[in-house]
Amino acid sequence: MMEFTLHERLAADTVEVTRWPLSLVLLMNARQWPWLILVPQRPDLRDLHDVPATDHGRLMNEITQASQGLQRLFAPHKINVAALGNVVPQLHIHVIARHATDPAWPRPVWSSDPPARYEPAELAARVDQLRHVLSDAAA
Amino acid sequence: MMEFTLHERLAADTVEVTRWPLSLVLLMNARQWPWLILVPQRPDLRDLHDVPATDHGRLMNEITQASQGLQRLFAPHKINVAALGNVVPQLHIHVIARHATDPAWPRPVWSSDPPARYEPAELAARVDQLRHVLSDAAA
Repeated sequence: MMEFTLHERLAADTVEVTRWPLSLVLLMNARQWPWLILVPQRPDLRDLHDVPATDHGRLMNEITQASQGLQRLFAPHKINVAALGNVVPQLHIHVIARHATDPAWPRPVWSSDPPARYEPAELAARVDQLRHVLSDAAA
Repeated sequence: MMEFTLHERLAADTVEVTRWPLSLVLLMNARQWPWLILVPQRPDLRDLHDVPATDHGRLMNEITQASQGLQRLFAPHKINVAALGNVVPQLHIHVIARHATDPAWPRPVWSSDPPARYEPAELAARVDQLRHVLSDAAA
């Protein structure tokens, strides 16, 4: 059986926030939007429907916890949740806080300018803030 | 308690395929992509994290059934699943079959040309085809 390894493109574009029972919780390095990515730590998952039924409850719970964490921290207008994976085949679920004032609104973030990276200090502060709220959320 | 009513924008852009225990299963009138929309038949749901935990298993099961139905019928390269709702606030989940030859690939469909409506006969045939595969899937 293969072990779970994070896809190199996801590793390059994100910073780890925490690890939950099912998912690795990553922050997308895109300062325009508070943007989490959940990656279920199971080998060989590609589409959402590849997630075994025994993990369905856990996955929905983790998506909910991530969404509520973003809601609490950023009071967004809307949370966007998506499993696309046309470019990176490893199953990963975007959980993105959207404000009516953000640069892509109301379009999806992928229709907008490419992600702008955080400044290092800003990135560290953002990760700390998220880690504080999310670390124990789905334990 | 309010009753569930389909948002008028969703009603205008889709055709009903079937009704599952939780979700209304709709076909998006967009001939570029085989594109289903699941709408949980509960009043006042907006974000995915508003779905009560008691419906989590059912929702994941219905997303899985919709995805597998599209997979069987269209053998796509990838299934995209998304709950965005920046424009239509009622919770609805896109389940879209993507081919590497479709007009938006690899971008999400929302970054592409607007949906082109099916011809009436084509639409009727597509709904029949989907209804045949999906009607009993999540019963």
